[in-house]
Amino acid sequence: MQIKPERLRARMQEMARVGGTERGGVSRLALTDADRDARNLFAGMCQAVGMTVRVDDVGNMYARHPGTDQAAAPVLVGSHLDSVALGGRYDGTLGVLAALEVINVLNDHGVATRHPIEVVNFTNEEGARFEPAMLGSGVLAGKFTPEWVYDRRDREGKRFLDELKRIGFLGSAANRPTRIQAYLELHLEQGPVLESESVPVGVVTGILGMQWMDVTLKGHQDHAGPSPMSTRRDAMVAAARCIVGVRDLARTYPDPIVATVGRIAATPGIVNVIPGEVRFSIDVRHDQSEGLADLGERARELVCRVAAEEGVSAQVELLWAIPPCHFDAAIVEKMSLGLEELGLPARRLTSGAGHDAKYMAELAPTGMIFVRTRDGKSHCEEEEAAWSDIDAAANLLLHTVERLA
Amino acid sequence: MQIKPERLRARMQEMARVGGTERGGVSRLALTDADRDARNLFAGMCQAVGMTVRVDDVGNMYARHPGTDQAAAPVLVGSHLDSVALGGRYDGTLGVLAALEVINVLNDHGVATRHPIEVVNFTNEEGARFEPAMLGSGVLAGKFTPEWVYDRRDREGKRFLDELKRIGFLGSAANRPTRIQAYLELHLEQGPVLESESVPVGVVTGILGMQWMDVTLKGHQDHAGPSPMSTRRDAMVAAARCIVGVRDLARTYPDPIVATVGRIAATPGIVNVIPGEVRFSIDVRHDQSEGLADLGERARELVCRVAAEEGVSAQVELLWAIPPCHFDAAIVEKMSLGLEELGLPARRLTSGAGHDAKYMAELAPTGMIFVRTRDGKSHCEEEEAAWSDIDAAANLLLHTVERLA
Repeated sequence: MQIKPERLRARMQEMARVGGTERGGVSRLALTDADRDARNLFAGMCQAVGMTVRVDDVGNMYARHPGTDQAAAPVLVGSHLDSVALGGRYDGTLGVLAALEVINVLNDHGVATRHPIEVVNFTNEEGARFEPAMLGSGVLAGKFTPEWVYDRRDREGKRFLDELKRIGFLGSAANRPTRIQAYLELHLEQGPVLESESVPVGVVTGILGMQWMDVTLKGHQDHAGPSPMSTRRDAMVAAARCIVGVRDLARTYPDPIVATVGRIAATPGIVNVIPGEVRFSIDVRHDQSEGLADLGERARELVCRVAAEEGVSAQVELLWAIPPCHFDAAIVEKMSLGLEELGLPARRLTSGAGHDAKYMAELAPTGMIFVRTRDGKSHCEEEEAAWSDIDAAANLLLHTVERLA
Repeated sequence: MQIKPERLRARMQEMARVGGTERGGVSRLALTDADRDARNLFAGMCQAVGMTVRVDDVGNMYARHPGTDQAAAPVLVGSHLDSVALGGRYDGTLGVLAALEVINVLNDHGVATRHPIEVVNFTNEEGARFEPAMLGSGVLAGKFTPEWVYDRRDREGKRFLDELKRIGFLGSAANRPTRIQAYLELHLEQGPVLESESVPVGVVTGILGMQWMDVTLKGHQDHAGPSPMSTRRDAMVAAARCIVGVRDLARTYPDPIVATVGRIAATPGIVNVIPGEVRFSIDVRHDQSEGLADLGERARELVCRVAAEEGVSAQVELLWAIPPCHFDAAIVEKMSLGLEELGLPARRLTSGAGHDAKYMAELAPTGMIFVRTRDGKSHCEEEEAAWSDIDAAANLLLHTVERLA
């Protein structure tokens, strides 16, 4: 059995028009009109291939393909249809529509599976409208209560629950799957690893754990002119040394371990004033729990040491920490074999970014497939992947579902 | 002859109530109601000691004390009454009211001077409401046309001219002084040098020249997770290395040479995204023209070298440059002698910050006196100076005026 590339392509193109941007991307923020239209289009596509669609209490959609044993736990396959603002047309959408294509192929061949298969669209994976990310899969995994999620507000102050009702996708908690046989997700890599090795498809072994820290350095605000270099307690210079130090620290670790400073703000932030306060973030990621704790601790120590040397005070707040996630070894093995059967190298890699699969791995044996991403770029309108790579990944998904269901 | 400390103190206290803040500072932004009230209070004080007050076409005020030779060019003495938001009660106000006290002492003793003396209050020295700073003295020195100044707008969009009219201080260009014998200004040091050496009063030899640069580094924006350390082109890390480098560069120079990064902005500025672009400012100051050019060039080279090493592009734009200013050698000598006569060390120093004296030095022989500032702090409500230091500085001003007028 093989997927039908042109059918998947046609569905991808149809979906890309929903919230489509002039430059070929999509803006489909969670629970907006565009998200509603995408959900309705998806529901229609599922019904057209004979599936029934349920919606749970946070808007997660499950399109069910029956199994021969209706009492058997379903195999869930999917991803998310929401996007960031000015995002790409592939991202989560590819995982949802590839899952639908898998069902279509099974139907084409009249193949019955013992386990039911449910194609899933998770709500608000991106976190681009309602923070944090992965709210839908997070509720399923018991990370968040629905009530807490309902009260999340976007930047305009609009509530998650009000918006979910508005677009007509408030379902029932009774529609959540109670038992799950396995969860599979196909997704763009969103990174440069596969491309740099000329590998079209990768098997994801897990997701890096991370710590987010918020650092506040307080020095002595002063005029740039009359303050001699030797007496300064310059929060900006201290922050800069920390930023370089954190990068140098991460460089002492092997891939895929990383550290990033993405956000910085200086107060008062005026050309001719030595900043009295600088705040910045540190994001550290590691594939092992102990290694993550150690990396975080070393970053904190570095900040405190630099601050002391520069005569500024340092406050390091842990914003959040999530442990590394390891996908199911048997599924990783099955996927690797599947790649070899397709005549492709079975490259295994760790995901640096979070995905719904991260939470699903706490509920059921979980696996993920990565598709090579052009220039490693995603979350942008230029996001691109080769159709031949997508076809290979979708075939791998098909064969993995076959084996598991 | 000696100034009367209690009289100066009483005037300082009266003026501090105009725009006074709860915590003992003042908020007297240029051309606000508080500035108007301060101007009216000042005019009344001048008239009370027999002076006549003129206002020029940008609101600069000149209170004239006649000389025996009315045709002789006047000696101008003064500073500014405007303040930053939540600024200190001393700053420019001290220079204006100390000048008034000088006239009062001459009157007390029936001392006639050949040259007229004019006590000056310059408009918008701070630049805290209308940018740039020193608009009033700048017009006098021909740096700006009145028309250009009239069109400056504050953050609410209000025009300089409209506000100047509103507070009733639009005068005539005919009221500008045509010839100036000398300009003298007493001001807080606003820095830590005098305090660190336990010296109450300093003679200012000039004002540092400066270059302001705007640096834009462009790298490759990417997700913090899936991007290996080795392939990153991280604009934040590059900027941080530049900031540390600029500090280290300035440290290789002797005082009073300085370099500062006060402003920074990262795009997109999100915890988990490697910034694709970082912009920051560089402010370099030097007391010699050639040295300033060299320092600026070395800062630029540093940025370009770091950018190349980090794989990011660099654009360095010169926002503005002003050459170092050197005060009149004869006045500096007179002031130094005056300090010795007062039994005080004749510490000479360079001002790191700009003052109206900077522009006035282009029109006439100019000198400045600095008063030791507690903790070097100014432009804040805690700004403080000892009355004994102020008295010594005001006496030096008195004796210098006597010699020059």
